[in-house]
Amino acid sequence: MNLSSLTLNHHHHHYPTTTFVHKKLTPHSSKHSTSFSPIKMSLTENAPSLAIVGVTGAVGQEFLSVLSYRNFPYRSLKLLASKRSAGKQITYEDKPYIVEELNEDSFKDVDIALFSAGGSVSKKFAPLAVEDGAIVVDNSSAFRMDDGVPLVVPEVNPEAMKHIKIRSGKGALIANPNCSTIICLMAATPLHRHAKVKRMVVSAYQAASGAGAAAMEELELQTREVLDGKEPTCKIFKQQYAFNLFSHNAPVLPNGYNEEEMKLVKETRKIWNDAHVKVTATCIRVPVMRAHAESVNLQFEKPLHEDTARDILKNAPGVVVIDDRAGNHFPTPLEVSNKDAVAVGRIRRDVSQDGDYGLDIFVCGDQIRKGAALNAVQIAEMLLK
Amino acid sequence: MNLSSLTLNHHHHHYPTTTFVHKKLTPHSSKHSTSFSPIKMSLTENAPSLAIVGVTGAVGQEFLSVLSYRNFPYRSLKLLASKRSAGKQITYEDKPYIVEELNEDSFKDVDIALFSAGGSVSKKFAPLAVEDGAIVVDNSSAFRMDDGVPLVVPEVNPEAMKHIKIRSGKGALIANPNCSTIICLMAATPLHRHAKVKRMVVSAYQAASGAGAAAMEELELQTREVLDGKEPTCKIFKQQYAFNLFSHNAPVLPNGYNEEEMKLVKETRKIWNDAHVKVTATCIRVPVMRAHAESVNLQFEKPLHEDTARDILKNAPGVVVIDDRAGNHFPTPLEVSNKDAVAVGRIRRDVSQDGDYGLDIFVCGDQIRKGAALNAVQIAEMLLK
Repeated sequence: MNLSSLTLNHHHHHYPTTTFVHKKLTPHSSKHSTSFSPIKMSLTENAPSLAIVGVTGAVGQEFLSVLSYRNFPYRSLKLLASKRSAGKQITYEDKPYIVEELNEDSFKDVDIALFSAGGSVSKKFAPLAVEDGAIVVDNSSAFRMDDGVPLVVPEVNPEAMKHIKIRSGKGALIANPNCSTIICLMAATPLHRHAKVKRMVVSAYQAASGAGAAAMEELELQTREVLDGKEPTCKIFKQQYAFNLFSHNAPVLPNGYNEEEMKLVKETRKIWNDAHVKVTATCIRVPVMRAHAESVNLQFEKPLHEDTARDILKNAPGVVVIDDRAGNHFPTPLEVSNKDAVAVGRIRRDVSQDGDYGLDIFVCGDQIRKGAALNAVQIAEMLLK
Repeated sequence: MNLSSLTLNHHHHHYPTTTFVHKKLTPHSSKHSTSFSPIKMSLTENAPSLAIVGVTGAVGQEFLSVLSYRNFPYRSLKLLASKRSAGKQITYEDKPYIVEELNEDSFKDVDIALFSAGGSVSKKFAPLAVEDGAIVVDNSSAFRMDDGVPLVVPEVNPEAMKHIKIRSGKGALIANPNCSTIICLMAATPLHRHAKVKRMVVSAYQAASGAGAAAMEELELQTREVLDGKEPTCKIFKQQYAFNLFSHNAPVLPNGYNEEEMKLVKETRKIWNDAHVKVTATCIRVPVMRAHAESVNLQFEKPLHEDTARDILKNAPGVVVIDDRAGNHFPTPLEVSNKDAVAVGRIRRDVSQDGDYGLDIFVCGDQIRKGAALNAVQIAEMLLK
């Protein structure tokens, strides 16, 4: 698997390509970094022992990248994957590691385990890790809606996990929300705190990365094929993705929503601890590599002027505002790719609502970074406090 | 200009490529053709004399293609364009035509003139054509909101133009709505007639074609460049379009909406003859060639069950329903490209609204075809009745 081709670089956006060698990267500009200051410890005797499950996947690779540039402290690092990937060598901070096959004994002496290997792997192995005393931060949807499992976006509801401590002798599960939920709530929550969201209508423009590294490769391959007049290869998705878009590939439920959409509906209620907030969503895959965009229409209980909203968002942790009307410069997936912050723009009074009770906003966030790996690492960082 | 490369074909979607030779095309399947039956006359002594302004553009070319496969009757055909394109030869129905430079005398003895050469050309020349007794069907936004100028989608508000007759000695202007308005209202109107839309939240996924043939070429060129690791050429748009998306390039107005979005808001009110209908829209360009998609959230005055809505749409002229939940098959831009009908799917009760007072739907339509050329030709067809 050639992960180096996954990020399509060009002159204006020189992003580091993802490879199997993880050195410390230059931190991103403060404008795009979150409020969480890196803890300068890294490889340290007293630091927690880490395990990464699904390390060869797109999010697994991003775990390493994020842990490294944020100087996450660790005593030891265990890289776990399926049998297929076991034996591969991965260099992390100049030290070689051999990928081990995930098994029932993988979590002896592990303090924190970051999981991103799909729901079925999480369902089988996360409880075993918890039994062995580890704190599992799980990127799958397996446990998100379970009572007693905190579903956490650190900037939004850190209090939900405050009872969980590492090395307490008691393992625990913390769920990482779905990427589109995280990205949406990073922008909507600061406004919700101020004026209380009554109803939210979301239309998502979702990148290939949400379906994994293979989907990104398929989009690239298909695009080459279509440009060459060839039939596009459809393995991951059953239809042409290049120069096309389609309703999200998640299964459609009896109510007509697909699972991706219902995650936005249900996870928002859990994260906001508000069973009554009204949310609807339409999730569409667009031929973009690794960052999601979301058009979000908000109806508030209290009035909120668009200028106030803009100021609130400018001061929100992990959020940047890109809202240059004169220059027609607003957030794009490419601009937030490989960036920590979620970008918000097109902030305007909704002309379809009376007074200042409605806003339209447009949000972009890196699906692999804040939508998955970064959020999980931030959760792990909170365990260190 | 190599228009033959504009439509990216592949095995599953063998669309005719657009060229300068327009023969009668095989009519599309009845499932995708509209309710307007072709009038079998074509080149006929008693038929109207036609002029096409902007014939070398993407929509101009589509005018010819649509006129031909719909057997539009004509006594004579005048192909008009700017000085730059004058002298070019275009074959229409096996007869060669020389493109003439548009000037003040172009409309003597023209019964129907189809304009698609931008707002400034329409502003200057459409009134001259009207003065000479022609009925102008104008695809630009120049006159759409003018009192006394009907803004017509034939399936939606044919009555708005019923007072206009050809060869009455009196010219007239009829405006073709904006592409995203046409596509949205083709789906929303049948539901509106049944349950009255109170409020509509639209998020659009708009194709390159809306910015013309050169924009489609730029998307193709940029995609090749990015895949080759080169810097993308940004002439039409000022930023990378390949594997990216961005807020629509139309100028942003003082209220924070761009002109494209306000067209949806204002044109809907005019076409529905309802000054109070509440509409908000967010228009985004996605890297798709020639068909728009729209996520539309609807709030109704009267209850409307999703099954009733689906039946209404199945019977609506110019609409096909693609709504296979089990097979996860819904409308895509590629599937409606080079098709007459607007496709609707993802028809479901909005879980964020009580009872049956809300629906979410997803609509796709060919931007050049029903979003522009076909709608204009259908307007012209109504003049023949």
